[in-house]
Amino acid sequence: MRLSQYFLPTLKETPAEAQVVSHRLMLRAGMIRQASAGIYNWLPLGYAVLKNIERIVREEQDRVGSQEVLMPTIQSADLWRQSGRYEDYGKEMLRIRDRHDREMLYGPTHEEQITEIFKHGAKSYRDVPQNLYQIQWKFRDEIRPRFGVMRGREFLMKDGYSFDIDYESAMRAYRLMFVTYLRTFARMGLQAIPVEAETGPIGGSTSHEFCVLADTGETEIYCPDDLLKFDVLGSVQNSVEDYGQIFDYVTSQYCRTDDRHEPEEFDRMVPAEKQVQRRGIEVGHIFYFGTKYSEPLDATISTRDGETVPVHMGSYGIGVSRVVGAIIEAFHDDSGIVWPEPVAPFTVGLINVKPSDESCTQAAEDLERRLQEAGVSVLHDDTPESAGAKFAQMDLIGLPWQVIVGPKGVKSGHVELKHRATGERQDVSPDSVVGKLAVA
Amino acid sequence: MRLSQYFLPTLKETPAEAQVVSHRLMLRAGMIRQASAGIYNWLPLGYAVLKNIERIVREEQDRVGSQEVLMPTIQSADLWRQSGRYEDYGKEMLRIRDRHDREMLYGPTHEEQITEIFKHGAKSYRDVPQNLYQIQWKFRDEIRPRFGVMRGREFLMKDGYSFDIDYESAMRAYRLMFVTYLRTFARMGLQAIPVEAETGPIGGSTSHEFCVLADTGETEIYCPDDLLKFDVLGSVQNSVEDYGQIFDYVTSQYCRTDDRHEPEEFDRMVPAEKQVQRRGIEVGHIFYFGTKYSEPLDATISTRDGETVPVHMGSYGIGVSRVVGAIIEAFHDDSGIVWPEPVAPFTVGLINVKPSDESCTQAAEDLERRLQEAGVSVLHDDTPESAGAKFAQMDLIGLPWQVIVGPKGVKSGHVELKHRATGERQDVSPDSVVGKLAVA
Repeated sequence: MRLSQYFLPTLKETPAEAQVVSHRLMLRAGMIRQASAGIYNWLPLGYAVLKNIERIVREEQDRVGSQEVLMPTIQSADLWRQSGRYEDYGKEMLRIRDRHDREMLYGPTHEEQITEIFKHGAKSYRDVPQNLYQIQWKFRDEIRPRFGVMRGREFLMKDGYSFDIDYESAMRAYRLMFVTYLRTFARMGLQAIPVEAETGPIGGSTSHEFCVLADTGETEIYCPDDLLKFDVLGSVQNSVEDYGQIFDYVTSQYCRTDDRHEPEEFDRMVPAEKQVQRRGIEVGHIFYFGTKYSEPLDATISTRDGETVPVHMGSYGIGVSRVVGAIIEAFHDDSGIVWPEPVAPFTVGLINVKPSDESCTQAAEDLERRLQEAGVSVLHDDTPESAGAKFAQMDLIGLPWQVIVGPKGVKSGHVELKHRATGERQDVSPDSVVGKLAVA
Repeated sequence: MRLSQYFLPTLKETPAEAQVVSHRLMLRAGMIRQASAGIYNWLPLGYAVLKNIERIVREEQDRVGSQEVLMPTIQSADLWRQSGRYEDYGKEMLRIRDRHDREMLYGPTHEEQITEIFKHGAKSYRDVPQNLYQIQWKFRDEIRPRFGVMRGREFLMKDGYSFDIDYESAMRAYRLMFVTYLRTFARMGLQAIPVEAETGPIGGSTSHEFCVLADTGETEIYCPDDLLKFDVLGSVQNSVEDYGQIFDYVTSQYCRTDDRHEPEEFDRMVPAEKQVQRRGIEVGHIFYFGTKYSEPLDATISTRDGETVPVHMGSYGIGVSRVVGAIIEAFHDDSGIVWPEPVAPFTVGLINVKPSDESCTQAAEDLERRLQEAGVSVLHDDTPESAGAKFAQMDLIGLPWQVIVGPKGVKSGHVELKHRATGERQDVSPDSVVGKLAVA
């Protein structure tokens, strides 16, 4: 992609309304633009990141046999009356009357709807275990939306639901999704810490929150150093069969937020030199809630013995749009964003320092083509801006690698390769740039 | 995917509420399930088709440099007041008041919002031409929603918008998108006929509708036989540079719906033996509307001469969820759906006729694995249902190829390969099934 053709309305000034660094940087980097309070337009650079995150979420869901569905944003109030949550939800639920004066709502979550779907599609023990998920926009009419996409009103979630014949089977599903979540975040370049959690308005008896570590996080997390070093992607054989083992290891660790923290227990379980206390941002939440919805909504299945029982359910959520903000909170510096490679909107920012110089332009275009042919996504700054402005903008948008093509280098047959995260620079030949990045 | 694990709630009975064949078949094949009037849940089989269609739309948009964004479903009424459409839209617009009593709406379209985005991101002739698109859910509160996803209330659209300095440049964008649309539908296996159209509530001066031919279509189309035979994917060199030539050829043909049909003109332009009269379903609509939105919303750019002018715009829509219904209207028979391969939810339906027979099961599992390794998507019916029920269900869901593994065949080293569209069957070795389908 040529920058001269790319829709990238970056801002030089820091927007006054943005209180947190991710909000500021997303606005400045031209990733989003506010449409109305707590509601955002995703511009090409921001939407590219969001799609990368969605893709990783999908791949990890598919890996464990979870199946993708899509439920509508607009739901009927009737179902929510059956579950008893219509009145409970209060003003955060966006309530709507259609032209026939029927009560509708913009779904803040989809437990009722998925239970209804399952109920009409499954009859017996043969139809479980089942795991259905969606990636869909939701709405919560926050009284004071803020922090950009970290706490918006219209936001993208992955919400998944498991259906099982009994508690034991449901806990197998829970363990599978627990490890799937660790893997999902790890693949985005994030170290997500699972902490025991309150179940809150979703209800249920077992629950974990997944928190990304960032100094700007909203909660304090206490855990052992070992957990930060634990590599879930490289652990054991890394096949689905090993997920139970990973679950057991991780949940045996002391790992709590401040509201549940017990200093004596922490000291007992974790030696002082391994104790870690860090700030975290919640990006995922999983629940086992048993028959909380299946009973009122009458979602039953027959057992092998012909008995009729309400199905046991769990739900599993990732704040997909929130993750974009959380990644920036975790990965940025004074110059801008520092994307982990798996979610970066482009892998390489190619800067032509002097487009008026024909040899520079030819070298830059040649390198762009070669990188693309090697499967590397490239944003090529071919604009007539000053070199300084180009460097600043490329640092701001945070692509993992910068390749700088200037007149001097072209003469001596080299370009400059800069690693955004470390700031490390080296003069290399175009060949070795292609070789290095095609592999990376 | 094993059918025993797949969430596929097919129906034996024809649902009474469904008036059109696509609606009936989508319900029966377990693709969708109604959530409330005109609002549907997409189940795994249906959502797989929808995602295939989205993917093709994206690839063809990307091919011509159109950039993907995402605008929110919920918009503020203010923008619509500026364009003058807030009152015009009537009861089809779903109007909402949030907790602070602000007037909001569920976007039935996004001209205002994209104009606002462009306005804040572009300043001069250097920032155009630009082409931005999204694939997003929209809502039109139809008084009597019907025909399933063909005329639902919550529906998925691809809507794209072009921005140009003047009329000539805008018409280049229009021609590019016109041919992109022909290609997009052709890649889905559809012959889409572009007919001159009224511009309607979007406004503007030039417009084409794209109609899929199906006997159950809502409008009558008159065109020459040549147009039905025209292969846009194979035409000329098929590079973006040739799009203008294709546009000129196609638009030189007589091609009208009944409201604009002039029999004498038809006779004059098309010899009697080449005249075609067929029913069509609208699946796309493109408009050039100039400065209709940029003037009231004050979206201006400066020209090379320093003059300030309102930007010239066009909009380009595909009814993505509607296309699913249109494809079924065009491709079905008495037994069920007949998917064109590019949009099929799986390429192959593998039927194990006798899972209680160990050699059958081993042969079926072996073939499933080999097909998957060859990159072929497979739905493997490993359930204990009767052979007859399996054949009927596989015909109903319409996968392009069926591979039938039975005890007799396994003994003699062959399986049966059935082509869903033609009904053609042949006994072949597992090797040749893999060879044939891996290439196809």
